[in-house]
Order: sequence, then structure tokens, then C-alpha cells
Amino acid sequence: MSKVRVHNFAVSLDGFATGEGQSLETPFGHAGGRLMQWFLGTRTFRSMNGKDGGSEGVDDAYASAWGPRIGAEIMGRNKFGPQRGPWTDEEWKGWWGDNPPFHTPVFVLTHHPRPTLEMEGGNTFHFIDASPKEALAQAREAAGGLDVRIGGGPTTVRQFLEADLIDHLHVVLVPIVLGRGVRLWDGLESLEDRFTVESVTPPSGVTHLTFTRK
Amino acid sequence: MSKVRVHNFAVSLDGFATGEGQSLETPFGHAGGRLMQWFLGTRTFRSMNGKDGGSEGVDDAYASAWGPRIGAEIMGRNKFGPQRGPWTDEEWKGWWGDNPPFHTPVFVLTHHPRPTLEMEGGNTFHFIDASPKEALAQAREAAGGLDVRIGGGPTTVRQFLEADLIDHLHVVLVPIVLGRGVRLWDGLESLEDRFTVESVTPPSGVTHLTFTRK
Repeated sequence: MSKVRVHNFAVSLDGFATGEGQSLETPFGHAGGRLMQWFLGTRTFRSMNGKDGGSEGVDDAYASAWGPRIGAEIMGRNKFGPQRGPWTDEEWKGWWGDNPPFHTPVFVLTHHPRPTLEMEGGNTFHFIDASPKEALAQAREAAGGLDVRIGGGPTTVRQFLEADLIDHLHVVLVPIVLGRGVRLWDGLESLEDRFTVESVTPPSGVTHLTFTRK
Repeated sequence: MSKVRVHNFAVSLDGFATGEGQSLETPFGHAGGRLMQWFLGTRTFRSMNGKDGGSEGVDDAYASAWGPRIGAEIMGRNKFGPQRGPWTDEEWKGWWGDNPPFHTPVFVLTHHPRPTLEMEGGNTFHFIDASPKEALAQAREAAGGLDVRIGGGPTTVRQFLEADLIDHLHVVLVPIVLGRGVRLWDGLESLEDRFTVESVTPPSGVTHLTFTRK
């Protein structure tokens, strides 16, 4: 059975999954690189960027679970780019260069659709104005029986959790206090009731939590 | 040098250290016992209540660090009791029976002072209307060179952290989403810069974080 999964989704102690003030230079706003520091040193991240080496311990085990059996991704528009409102041009093709790391169809949720964008490596970006449920139906269709990943950001993940559409959620708790930004947990009281929760803290100091649907 | 310490202070994933709706029957409001479940089974908690047995693993190691070298406690009025505003009587003597587990002077922060309350076992409750800094000066005096514990609740701990008066903070992250209540982390952006942070997740599934002043 095809599952809906979230991976490598980092939040601060105060529940922010991104900072305030996203821009072209600061995809995570004032959070900078702090939420993803644990990830940058992993073999998984390095190989996504064509580099050798990297850690192969607990953090990498979680990081690497991101890819296998995924047939499509759904992401919010703010993960795709820092623009807001109607597109002033369609030159922006995401943060990831000519060959993004997804290698599947990607559905970008936006109130401002634009034409489908075909990129290298099997990356096809569809821009759709749809509810979580409708978007998931389209993504499942495109995934050909494989799983669908919800790629973020926090507003998108929260909406899919609210709609009870997530089967597996991997959260990385980073022991910092961001103070401001976009929160993951709002409106999700007693979320844990629907999931089996496991946690581990490797030497990097982050805590990996997995929520797996009961 | 005398230190100021917080121990066994549990927060939810969304940063709430107590729920909404505190009452005589529900000291933690709608959170019920969920934030302190990890603690109830420890040998430390059981022995506080005159009982034998209990776990002696990681959770108990942290739990037991609560007592040694403490010469006084400061707590907020909402930790002392569920009443609000002026005292209608002075019959209420806390949640802990005739012989509370503190066995030191205890300073209760309140805008409504009342006479000092002497109880069994060296428990003396002073009710003071004071700033964190003033309260700490009084507690240090009473502690006779030993450490001062800030006992909670979240508003009190947050105020002492804001005033940069805490040397050691032990937070227990409980993997639940409370949704509402009183938050610990508000106004504490970049708290981690002032501390060395360590984390561990034992089999109980909570994560113990210690913040030790750099």
C-alpha cells in the first residue's frame, strides 16, 4: 500500500520549522543553516550534491530514508521559492539548479498556477491550486504505486497532518530556540494519539522522532 | 559557587510546560499526568512519596539530580496552588501534604503575600512579592551557600531565564502535542548561545536536555 511520508523535517525546541524573513539568500529566514546543520555533514546530503564522503551514522541512516520507494513529492510554494503572490516571471526554477534531487514528479501547491516545468533527471514540476486531499490524489496517480513524500514547508506539512493524510513523519528536533518563524505543531493537539512515536538522540545532539500511523 | 538550577522540567513538543485549566483536581490542567509520566515510575519519585522500588535507569539518574546541594527553592504561585488573586483563606498549604518533599526554605512568588508557613521536615514557605533578582537574593541568603532551585511553573522559569539567572536547566521533552497551556520558550530566542546543550533519549521515549551555562 502506498504511504504518505515526511522526512528530515527539522523543528526548533519552540516548534518553528523555518525562521522569519525568507529571501533568495536565506531560504530558512533568520534561522539560517541552523535547522539543517545535522544534515549537511551526512553522506546522503553530500551525494545529493555530487560529493563524496560524509558521516554514515545515525543521522545519515535517517537522512537516507528520504529517497527509497518515493514516486512523487508534494511541496508548498515557499519551499519552491521565496516569491509571493502572482509570478512576475517564470524564470525561477527552484533552489536546486538544473538537476534537482527529487527525480520524480513534484507537485507545487500554489494559488498561482503556471505551466509545468520539465527539468533534468526526471524532475517535473506541476503547479496546482488544490486542497491537500486533491493534491494527494494527483500525486498518487503520478507515483505509480510508490509512496508520496510531503516535502514541506511547515504550513504544508501541518495542513496534511490536520487532514490526517500522513502515514509516516520524521521530525528532527534541533535544540535551539528560534523565537519566530512558522510553527509546525499549531492546531495538532494530541497528534501523538494517531501514531506510534519513537525517538533517538545521536551524538550530533539532535533528536530524531518518527511518528508512524497506528 | 552557588548555582541556580532547574530540574525535571517537562515540556511538550509544542513547548507547553503545563496545560490549560489548572484546578485543584488537575494541577497540570488538561495535560493531566502526561508531562510527568516518565517521572512517576522512577525510584526518586517513589521514595519522595515513601514508597519502595521504581526504575533506576537514565530517567531516574536525571530525576535524582533534583535534590543534592539544594539549599532553597523558588516557585511561582501557580506551582503552589490553583488559587488566583487575593487569598480568601490561608488554609491551603500546597499539594504535598504535611511534609512536602523540599525540606528547605521555599520562596513562593506572589503579588499577594501571606504569613510564612512552617511545615514538617524543614519546609518553610515564604510568600514574597519580588522580582526574580530580588527573590534570588533572598533565596541565596537562606540557602547558606548551597544551590537554589527554581521549581517552576513555566512562567517563573521563563522569567528567570529571561533575566539570565539560571546556571543549569534540565528540560524533559515529552513527545506529545498539548496544543494549549503555558509555554516555556517564548521570548527566549537564541537561548542556546549562553549554554552548553546535551541531549539523551532513554527507552521511555522522553528526551532529557541539559543546558549548562558556558
